[in-house]
Amino acid sequence: MVETTQIEAARRGVVTEQVRQVAQKEGLDEDVVRHLVAEGRIVILYNPNHSNGGAVAVGHPARTKVNANIGTSEDRMDVDLELAKLRAAIAAGTDTVMDLSTGGDLDKIRRQIIAESSVPVGSVPIYQTVKETVGAGGEVWEFDADALFADIEKHAGDGISFVTVHCGVTRASLERLHKQGRIMGIVSRGGAFLARYIEETGRENPLYEQFDRLLDIAKKYDLTLSLGDGLRPGCLSDATDRAQIEELITLGELRKRALEAGVQVMIEGPGHIPLNQVEENMRLQKELTDGAPFYVLGPVVIDIAPGFDHIVAAIGGAVAALCGADFLCYVTPSEHIRLPDVEDVVEGVVGARIAAHAADVALGIAGAAEKDREMALARASLDWKTQERLAIHPHRFRAIRASSTPRDPKVCTMCGRFCALKVFKHKE
Amino acid sequence: MVETTQIEAARRGVVTEQVRQVAQKEGLDEDVVRHLVAEGRIVILYNPNHSNGGAVAVGHPARTKVNANIGTSEDRMDVDLELAKLRAAIAAGTDTVMDLSTGGDLDKIRRQIIAESSVPVGSVPIYQTVKETVGAGGEVWEFDADALFADIEKHAGDGISFVTVHCGVTRASLERLHKQGRIMGIVSRGGAFLARYIEETGRENPLYEQFDRLLDIAKKYDLTLSLGDGLRPGCLSDATDRAQIEELITLGELRKRALEAGVQVMIEGPGHIPLNQVEENMRLQKELTDGAPFYVLGPVVIDIAPGFDHIVAAIGGAVAALCGADFLCYVTPSEHIRLPDVEDVVEGVVGARIAAHAADVALGIAGAAEKDREMALARASLDWKTQERLAIHPHRFRAIRASSTPRDPKVCTMCGRFCALKVFKHKE
Repeated sequence: MVETTQIEAARRGVVTEQVRQVAQKEGLDEDVVRHLVAEGRIVILYNPNHSNGGAVAVGHPARTKVNANIGTSEDRMDVDLELAKLRAAIAAGTDTVMDLSTGGDLDKIRRQIIAESSVPVGSVPIYQTVKETVGAGGEVWEFDADALFADIEKHAGDGISFVTVHCGVTRASLERLHKQGRIMGIVSRGGAFLARYIEETGRENPLYEQFDRLLDIAKKYDLTLSLGDGLRPGCLSDATDRAQIEELITLGELRKRALEAGVQVMIEGPGHIPLNQVEENMRLQKELTDGAPFYVLGPVVIDIAPGFDHIVAAIGGAVAALCGADFLCYVTPSEHIRLPDVEDVVEGVVGARIAAHAADVALGIAGAAEKDREMALARASLDWKTQERLAIHPHRFRAIRASSTPRDPKVCTMCGRFCALKVFKHKE
Repeated sequence: MVETTQIEAARRGVVTEQVRQVAQKEGLDEDVVRHLVAEGRIVILYNPNHSNGGAVAVGHPARTKVNANIGTSEDRMDVDLELAKLRAAIAAGTDTVMDLSTGGDLDKIRRQIIAESSVPVGSVPIYQTVKETVGAGGEVWEFDADALFADIEKHAGDGISFVTVHCGVTRASLERLHKQGRIMGIVSRGGAFLARYIEETGRENPLYEQFDRLLDIAKKYDLTLSLGDGLRPGCLSDATDRAQIEELITLGELRKRALEAGVQVMIEGPGHIPLNQVEENMRLQKELTDGAPFYVLGPVVIDIAPGFDHIVAAIGGAVAALCGADFLCYVTPSEHIRLPDVEDVVEGVVGARIAAHAADVALGIAGAAEKDREMALARASLDWKTQERLAIHPHRFRAIRASSTPRDPKVCTMCGRFCALKVFKHKE
């Protein structure tokens, strides 16, 4: 429960403690941040019920942020594994995590993750509602709307800072989906649950129909709503189609209502998108949602590289962030194949951080290019200790270097005495 | 020794056996390929002295190609390791390899690699000239120009299909380099050798001054000249500077002379380039070299990720290929740290292939998008065997899937029975 949301405070001209914190971390002026929060162009992920989670700003000119999805599945209900993944994700530099658990005692797991996490935690509450419906012998679409709202409130009360809510999966957007024709249909779990609910019960999506009820809960906890793209394309052939854009239009309308209510909102985006369509997708999202912070999954720019989708998503994520995306959800090497393990989490976080940093340097985000300049200076002087310290993953750097010792410790085993930096001394 | 080069044949209207082969592999019309070869917009890497190497076309609308660098160093002179890397690179799908050996008996190593390689092999002959100079007690800049030309001819005679020759490192471009001021100076080995030669001896670069002699050798063997960017930037701060562009202008002039002489030419490109400068670099290269095939190393779009530079280069390579690059030299996870091992080679080749394919799909290259569509169909029907077969690295796919068995073999351990594709059946 909060007295006032970040947006309301910002509109009254108040620089909150969280605005102060993020402004300092980002190297931005406090009043610039406050102004962008008031306009909804930056959201601050923060829940006072998760006291050690800190506050994270999403939205340029803040640095591009990275999220790591963790959580159990029914095939792998190992809470210790998920806590190990949480620690690995944070050590690798993720800005947030999402608990997407669907196996085991979900309340207990979520509370353990929040208690252990030093970064804000997000969730997809409908996973719990549907899992418990099915656990009680029901079908996935037989969940109760009231139970869904109760789960959202429970998550917020537990300390969750942002929730994915697939409000744009509506009768209208499903009609467009069917008229469209797709290879992959729906690849979002939350989207699929709601689509099935609509089609089996004949009722409208409760998250759309009772959006004001959702806003009331969000306002009470200053919970950031991440409006999910339940109809995101699941393959290149389905990208940028009428169903996807219909949903985006609806999300833009809902975001306007949320801002009017003083609730923080992000918009989620695709998905599988060919490289030449990434820029147009980012521009379109910014136009149709009046500049809302954009949270993308990937984009995955080719379909044929399962096992290496962290690389595929790094390509898409870098271009997306350069063209407007503010928040990159990681993709791990196991995406499309299995639940990720600890090593996958590390690869996924580093891949997403590389994409985010590539965009931040290109966008001139405060402090970004300075890191690369420091690394260049360390390389030019063949200072290996400093290179290790500045590396995005110092442990990996050290391990690779230690595995192959040059006779001359000033160089490396690639070039030895033929090292260009030794051969030609540049006089700057 | 060849009777006639591919360019000369193409200009006379002859469809050579190699043009026929590449047209078939690329799904292009033979006469279109012949026309582009005549104009120098496609080069065909082929040396009749390397009979099992096949012919590879570089230049859009042919598919974007990938090269893997292998070769010994003085710190690691293990020929068997290099042959294992050769086999791994080819198995992972590289289109060519370059033997960059600088340790051991270079003639023997090169001949072994060519004998074992089923793809065209490139080299950087100056490495041998300098290594042997130093081996005989000289300094790196004390090599003999005649020995360099002799080494180039020897490589061509052995079956090398393309050589990197840093013809643009000249007195004039070095003067620009010094006026420019840089953090990293020269990071190209060949470039550094020639720069040191120019500065120590006061003589001009023999590869520039005696360019006609180089053309005579190239013509005799239809050796493709890959005009190297000895002054490529080695860090983001040095990118797109006056020294780099001066060299590129010179390479454009030399390329024109080579085409007039009927010699095939590629241009090499950077290097470390921020993401927002990749497109302008590619456009500029195409303008200044009249559309020559462009062979890039990376581009590496951030400096701070040694240990993960295969991901960094995949981002840069995908955008580069989308904007004009035709040939991507891989970068491995060990780049900037040590000589790569076999596993690095696999990661490097797959990363570069992902970048190339992302661009090829976006560019509408013949046959590219169909592979992704097939994968999407296999995913939509939860056909795991077909997904494995279509995956860019089937072995990796299989290993990841086998490591985590779902109770229901139709799905995976990420979502289990909550798999969106099972929950919502799309009726196309």
